[in-house]
Amino acid sequence: MTLAQALFSPRAIALVGASGDEAKNTARPQRYLSKYGYAGKIAPINASRAEVLGLKSYKSIKETPFAIDHAFIMVGDVEGALEDCGQAGVPVATIFTDGFADAGAAGMVRQQRLVARAQALGVRLLGPNSMGMINLAGRCPITVNAVLAMDIPPAGATSIVSQSGTMLGTVLSRGAARGLGFAKLISVGNEADIGVGEIVEMLAADAETRTILLFLETVRDAATLERAARAAHAAGKPVVAYKLGRSVLGQRLARSHTGALAGEDAALDAYFRDCGIVRVDMLETLIEIGPLLAGRKPPAKEYASRAPRVAVVTTTGGGAASVVDRLGMYGIEAASPDAQSPIIDLTMGKKAATYGDVVNELLAFPGCDAVLAVVGSSAQFEPQHAVEPIVKARSGARPGAKALAVFMTPQADRSLALLAQAGIAAFRTPEACADALRAFFSWRSPRQAPSGATLPWPGELPLRGQLNEEQSLHLFKTLGVAVVESAIAHAPDYAHALPYPVALKILSAEVAHKSDVGGVVLGVRDFQGLRENALKIGKATGKPVSQILVQCMEQGLAEAIVGYRDDPVAGPLVMVGAGGILAELYNDVVIRLAPVGEAEALEMIGQVKGFEVLRGYRGRPPGDLAALARAVAALSRLALIEGRPVREAEANPVIVKSRGAVAVDALAVLKDEEVKREE
Amino acid sequence: MTLAQALFSPRAIALVGASGDEAKNTARPQRYLSKYGYAGKIAPINASRAEVLGLKSYKSIKETPFAIDHAFIMVGDVEGALEDCGQAGVPVATIFTDGFADAGAAGMVRQQRLVARAQALGVRLLGPNSMGMINLAGRCPITVNAVLAMDIPPAGATSIVSQSGTMLGTVLSRGAARGLGFAKLISVGNEADIGVGEIVEMLAADAETRTILLFLETVRDAATLERAARAAHAAGKPVVAYKLGRSVLGQRLARSHTGALAGEDAALDAYFRDCGIVRVDMLETLIEIGPLLAGRKPPAKEYASRAPRVAVVTTTGGGAASVVDRLGMYGIEAASPDAQSPIIDLTMGKKAATYGDVVNELLAFPGCDAVLAVVGSSAQFEPQHAVEPIVKARSGARPGAKALAVFMTPQADRSLALLAQAGIAAFRTPEACADALRAFFSWRSPRQAPSGATLPWPGELPLRGQLNEEQSLHLFKTLGVAVVESAIAHAPDYAHALPYPVALKILSAEVAHKSDVGGVVLGVRDFQGLRENALKIGKATGKPVSQILVQCMEQGLAEAIVGYRDDPVAGPLVMVGAGGILAELYNDVVIRLAPVGEAEALEMIGQVKGFEVLRGYRGRPPGDLAALARAVAALSRLALIEGRPVREAEANPVIVKSRGAVAVDALAVLKDEEVKREE
Repeated sequence: MTLAQALFSPRAIALVGASGDEAKNTARPQRYLSKYGYAGKIAPINASRAEVLGLKSYKSIKETPFAIDHAFIMVGDVEGALEDCGQAGVPVATIFTDGFADAGAAGMVRQQRLVARAQALGVRLLGPNSMGMINLAGRCPITVNAVLAMDIPPAGATSIVSQSGTMLGTVLSRGAARGLGFAKLISVGNEADIGVGEIVEMLAADAETRTILLFLETVRDAATLERAARAAHAAGKPVVAYKLGRSVLGQRLARSHTGALAGEDAALDAYFRDCGIVRVDMLETLIEIGPLLAGRKPPAKEYASRAPRVAVVTTTGGGAASVVDRLGMYGIEAASPDAQSPIIDLTMGKKAATYGDVVNELLAFPGCDAVLAVVGSSAQFEPQHAVEPIVKARSGARPGAKALAVFMTPQADRSLALLAQAGIAAFRTPEACADALRAFFSWRSPRQAPSGATLPWPGELPLRGQLNEEQSLHLFKTLGVAVVESAIAHAPDYAHALPYPVALKILSAEVAHKSDVGGVVLGVRDFQGLRENALKIGKATGKPVSQILVQCMEQGLAEAIVGYRDDPVAGPLVMVGAGGILAELYNDVVIRLAPVGEAEALEMIGQVKGFEVLRGYRGRPPGDLAALARAVAALSRLALIEGRPVREAEANPVIVKSRGAVAVDALAVLKDEEVKREE
Repeated sequence: MTLAQALFSPRAIALVGASGDEAKNTARPQRYLSKYGYAGKIAPINASRAEVLGLKSYKSIKETPFAIDHAFIMVGDVEGALEDCGQAGVPVATIFTDGFADAGAAGMVRQQRLVARAQALGVRLLGPNSMGMINLAGRCPITVNAVLAMDIPPAGATSIVSQSGTMLGTVLSRGAARGLGFAKLISVGNEADIGVGEIVEMLAADAETRTILLFLETVRDAATLERAARAAHAAGKPVVAYKLGRSVLGQRLARSHTGALAGEDAALDAYFRDCGIVRVDMLETLIEIGPLLAGRKPPAKEYASRAPRVAVVTTTGGGAASVVDRLGMYGIEAASPDAQSPIIDLTMGKKAATYGDVVNELLAFPGCDAVLAVVGSSAQFEPQHAVEPIVKARSGARPGAKALAVFMTPQADRSLALLAQAGIAAFRTPEACADALRAFFSWRSPRQAPSGATLPWPGELPLRGQLNEEQSLHLFKTLGVAVVESAIAHAPDYAHALPYPVALKILSAEVAHKSDVGGVVLGVRDFQGLRENALKIGKATGKPVSQILVQCMEQGLAEAIVGYRDDPVAGPLVMVGAGGILAELYNDVVIRLAPVGEAEALEMIGQVKGFEVLRGYRGRPPGDLAALARAVAALSRLALIEGRPVREAEANPVIVKSRGAVAVDALAVLKDEEVKREE
């Protein structure tokens, strides 16, 4: 029996702490199993009763007369229950009980002990603090989730993995209300052992799952999830994520709520993209987007060079505009075979063409990448006018035909269900509809896995402590970054061979804020100036200067910042942004998983607004963005160095010229050192 | 009988073009009037029948034996029907027929003729291209809107005015599904005569209306709507707008759809704010926000100096985080009496405190400005756990107590209705909930009306043609803008009294792109340089230079741009933004209706990100933002000049110094001249 079988389709389940009081939460799992017609064996475990809700119960898992595949633990003494599981040979236990990593430092220690013991016993764990798992098609709900009080929802081909137990209920309940069915729903809780990544791997191989949804507060197992996302992509199963923690406030919440380490959102955004995971912005998009992606591959890469185009047919001008206006905000264009109007408006009886004919025409229209059908009042009471023709048009189209999204303006539950049944993506709000199309168009195949070839650490550089600027420049240079010509000049004569004018910088790994303490002087014109300024720097920084870094002055068209960070959550990242204060004030930076090639670096650069000045803005001379891309790709190779000793690195600024791009300031921080950087 | 009475509560209605075929759209008004139990008289007007759907019908309005208060015109021959209305003394006609401004240039001409004739006849017009009006409490629907096929919705205290007929149905249908009632719903169509502004004025005086919603594609009567918004504010009635055309694509659609002139969205955004109109971003927010605002005044101005704070109670961590994360993106903070956690999480049975007690505690908590209550699964089947306690807590609170918003994670229609009935704002999606709170906190009282005192046009300046830079500088100076010292130097000796270095500029109203054609030279050090450069400018621009503008060189800490525009849709506007390319690349500008005072100008400046460098960023010396505010306020007084002859004006750059802020380049374009500006 595989882990997936034990987790999703156990032949026998033990409910540890099952209550005989129907009103209690702990009575729910047994009630739900019975309600859903679970076909396997159920063993309620209850120390004080011989029978629970009509079933014979046992004092311990060890006493059950049949082998247990999956234990659901609801008691406070999780440790005792785990020992019993180990002794009884139970392969997997889901732990509902909380008070572990979700409960501060002491809970974290308890959790670590629990996991270590489970490993020793050979028991895999889902949770703690998990609401359980629901296998709809398999009629096997193992959960306390109150949502199952609803009528049994339809089974479908979408599975969802959630770091919030309640949100599973949200997705199931809202999905059911619009006729969307689900295959498996899994609450991962604290992910002490089995994490989101491992579950997605199982779902990628799961015959009943065609689309995988994720409700995330953070990512705890980036490498596993990346591998799983690749497997899902290979299996033709789209993976969609809704992730909290976009704001600092949200990140703080995610941490306090589940004891998770919150990753910086921009880093995870890059991570999702590069894993081929579609990220949605709105909660309902997660519920509604499935049919838009199911059975499809990520769109071609061409949207890097031109805007995606959506053809629109509608029976309501205002309704269509509410979606199209938002699409415009995302840079998506409306395309129409009718040159007169960007959308085809079939408002009440104004045109003879029937709705279905137009949908067919647009699905075949080569000038668009997707079709949006908007339906007004008729969606509520007269599905025959537009909704049924849409269903008919779609069912007549070849498989894998153009993506089709439907937005209906009125309250139209029956029409939503009708479309869901036909596998057509239907949206309740114009915002979720636009968000889904945006997400669809930004969907990418997983990045090429970094080549296995690792780079050696330059033997002449230390592997401990902070690198000084000269060492950092040297490191960057070995990676292939073009760096400014530098020399170290020693007191008292400060001899060097560089042509004037030069820049002087204090050379000390301990001074992090060089400029702020007067440790940098630019435009020194001659030897006399050099000596005077070396003395000044000594005075300003309070230390006699025995050696000083001398650099050629570089002039260019604009400044860039290129950075690298080995993120504890998302892994190695590379960043490029507009220089000066633009990156910081306007957050004008683009981030990707490292390493990147030059083509990808150039695509990143293309998304930085501030580089407009280097793209021939108002007649200015264009900058050498290919050279900048080489610098980005080169610095990103820090991710390939054996053992990944660098925590973060920054070339700031990189001077971009008409020909070439040169890093004039370098900072690299090793992992064994506290992070120090200019702020 | 007032216009409002004739429009909303006519004693007798003529249905011009009423069909006897129940399946036809034109049969709907009579069917709906009968379905809703309209108490007045109905006169179907039908040239070919003696009876329509059981009522005696007439060949013309002129033949009805009773006086008609309101005619609903559905026939192609609108002009003929209007003549009949005029002769029969009908005070108001609603025109469903389209083919006017919505149908291109010819239609526009037809519409202008129609309006002129209506004025001559003394008939007021709603439409053309109007779906009609629904007075729910008055049981008087005069509309073809298919939405009325639904069960009769509850009457309420919210009225809505829409430029899209279908969207009225959307709001009514979705509102009814969650128990929200409406008072009056009005489709204004092309607004040929009666516009949104005039309707809002009527609703501000309407006893049954407490909240006014607007669905807009543009604004056609800015001055009237501003007056109406003030009246609504004075009557304690919040006005909320959802407006399309935020993207360029959306603006293009709005134009093609209704023949409207689309205003620049940023201008209308400033307009709404300064009118005291709350603007929402999402369609469902428009439907759901009513109870959050009803009976309230705009929050205090203090949110300019500190972030708004929301206290949160929840039964689901993930559900609360989905709202709070988004609030964080809007700069809204979570506040809690419990120092340990930003939210109060009452997840299943973890705390003894009941939900209602916590809501009461938070409503009384002085550390927050609003309360957010989030409810998980229990909202669907067990309202007694959290939803009913919320209703009880709210009903126990004093009137006008803190604003309360509720978000429920599952499909929870009954709970939505329960809360609606109690007048509590309840939201279906975390996004609309956060959008509503954002909109609530950004709600402002209408700006102080500009003082009546107009300023004279400086007699020494021309009132026609383009002003040259010297004239523009002079104009700015008379308004109180600090401008650079300038002089005109004449060939051949170019004498002037300014100290060197100076800047030279070609002085010609015809050269719009001075810099691009080599018409500007900076940093001229002496008389020789002046003469040489004057010759160069002459060569570069292809004209001998008989006179040249000489200006002192100004040095400062950063550049700003200050602009003025008399927008054809929104009226006079003033703008301030970061200088250089920041305003353009990052759209880092703030716009308000002009004129503004210095305090308001300072508030605008506080919202420009790029001015961070002038606010002590990284130890830099602070800039004189008060002086910049004086320049903004001064330039905005262009709105007070008699006859408002200036179409647009720009001081770019304004050099901001440690003390003072000086405009070194000035451009003013009069209305009788084509717009020319540096691009």
